[in-house]
Amino acid sequence: MSEAAIAPSATLGSARTGASPSRAAIGDSEFDRDTALTRREPGVYDIELSAGWTIISAVNGGYLLAVLGRALADALPHPDPFTISAHYLTASQPGPAVVRTETVRTGRTLSTGQASLFQLDEQGNEVERIRVLASYGDLGALPDDVRTAARPPQMPPPEQCFGPQDAPSPVPGSSAITDRLFLKLDPSTLGWALGKPSGKGEMRAWFGLADGRDADPLSLLLAVDALPPTAFEIGLSGWVPTVELTVHVRCRPAPGPLRVAITTRNLAGGFLEEDAEVWDSADRLVAQSRQLARVRLG
Amino acid sequence: MSEAAIAPSATLGSARTGASPSRAAIGDSEFDRDTALTRREPGVYDIELSAGWTIISAVNGGYLLAVLGRALADALPHPDPFTISAHYLTASQPGPAVVRTETVRTGRTLSTGQASLFQLDEQGNEVERIRVLASYGDLGALPDDVRTAARPPQMPPPEQCFGPQDAPSPVPGSSAITDRLFLKLDPSTLGWALGKPSGKGEMRAWFGLADGRDADPLSLLLAVDALPPTAFEIGLSGWVPTVELTVHVRCRPAPGPLRVAITTRNLAGGFLEEDAEVWDSADRLVAQSRQLARVRLG
Repeated sequence: MSEAAIAPSATLGSARTGASPSRAAIGDSEFDRDTALTRREPGVYDIELSAGWTIISAVNGGYLLAVLGRALADALPHPDPFTISAHYLTASQPGPAVVRTETVRTGRTLSTGQASLFQLDEQGNEVERIRVLASYGDLGALPDDVRTAARPPQMPPPEQCFGPQDAPSPVPGSSAITDRLFLKLDPSTLGWALGKPSGKGEMRAWFGLADGRDADPLSLLLAVDALPPTAFEIGLSGWVPTVELTVHVRCRPAPGPLRVAITTRNLAGGFLEEDAEVWDSADRLVAQSRQLARVRLG
Repeated sequence: MSEAAIAPSATLGSARTGASPSRAAIGDSEFDRDTALTRREPGVYDIELSAGWTIISAVNGGYLLAVLGRALADALPHPDPFTISAHYLTASQPGPAVVRTETVRTGRTLSTGQASLFQLDEQGNEVERIRVLASYGDLGALPDDVRTAARPPQMPPPEQCFGPQDAPSPVPGSSAITDRLFLKLDPSTLGWALGKPSGKGEMRAWFGLADGRDADPLSLLLAVDALPPTAFEIGLSGWVPTVELTVHVRCRPAPGPLRVAITTRNLAGGFLEEDAEVWDSADRLVAQSRQLARVRLG
């Protein structure tokens, strides 16, 4: 089978939305280019992991999940991740990577697949970076019945929130991802940036992509892991590496900015959980996630 | 390699706790016997799935997760599930099953593994029932630093709560699991049993094992999926099959009954999430889980 590029075609994406040249379209944007894979053969995909989605020199876990999510969307007969779990094994680096997928089961409304991302070590051996198990469906085929009891987070409007560009001092280390995102944090979760963490494990922000691309189910996988760690507001510093991340994608997001609200309620034993909710401009709870992460105490 | 039975030995379990003959010990209980596997060779385990853990004729998903969890505890160098995700593919039946495990990565403090449960169909082909991805560690090695902000659920004491045995009418279909459990539901989440569901997606109960065995990390995998569906309190009836279930086990539970509190906040599009918290007698938040389940609307 000839190689196939796996990303919505640029032309198709632009034509569909009629986006102005200054605003990227789904299918023709930084996010799409940097998550695009080439199918080498069924179940095997090549990609160059971008250096543009790093935070403090680590490749962002949500970006990596979106890469794996795109591979599975190609491999499985259903287009959208409904529930996807990733275990992060070793640290990914910008550069060449291979994604290998396996179809576990295909059904009428749901299919399940598995995917792993590998990179070569200095001896040329494949080292597994991340393994994912996911069930996919068609979000467009779901009935309209919506009885969500949860309510969107209360947040000031974006113009009263603050992004990395507003920060008094730059984020240490590489902050390339902040150039890719439209991120405006709720000032009530920004005490840490001013040396006065609130002590409450919360982080809230308006979220979008810097080039204006609207959200879609795959970019939601990025959105749930793209805010500063709640640990910062608890008063902990340093890296908070993700051990495992599970995302439920419940709805195709409407165009426009998202609101992401993250909560930590169980910091204990050197680990914490981060629960993220993603709300779209139509006040739909489009994604929910939980990750288990390690913290450095003291 | 000779066959090996995988369950804590009966003698060791009883001796360690000094349990009275009328109260089962960890290692010598219904739960241990019904989740015991025989290792046929490295990575391959046989088990007879018990009919004793069914609810309305379906083998309980938490019991199945505990079976897979026990296999991985044997296969991996670390004893306790820290984070475990299961995708339920096809319905399991009581009877023979095979669990196949794979070690994905072993580290100093965490190891990751994968496990699948298979049963034979009528033609004698292996059909995959469940696939699991999990990271294991040693809960006993975690530091004592506990800053849990969450608080235990407010519930009446067990003697003011109600179990299946108190129900005015029996649960339809096979309810074998209710004979295995000590389950006392919070009356404020029991409106459904009296024809008056509250409309709120909540379910709370005191939980234990009927034979008195204390909880351990593996039985927590059962506890998070052993209550009636929150859908009942929302006013929906019928089966609410689990698509995916992720459990974080954060602490070895203290002896004594557990409190399980489950919440649903996003019933939409024919799916809902159930978030479970499990609290032990020392007021520790010992496990958190989220499952994605399908509902029948209307």
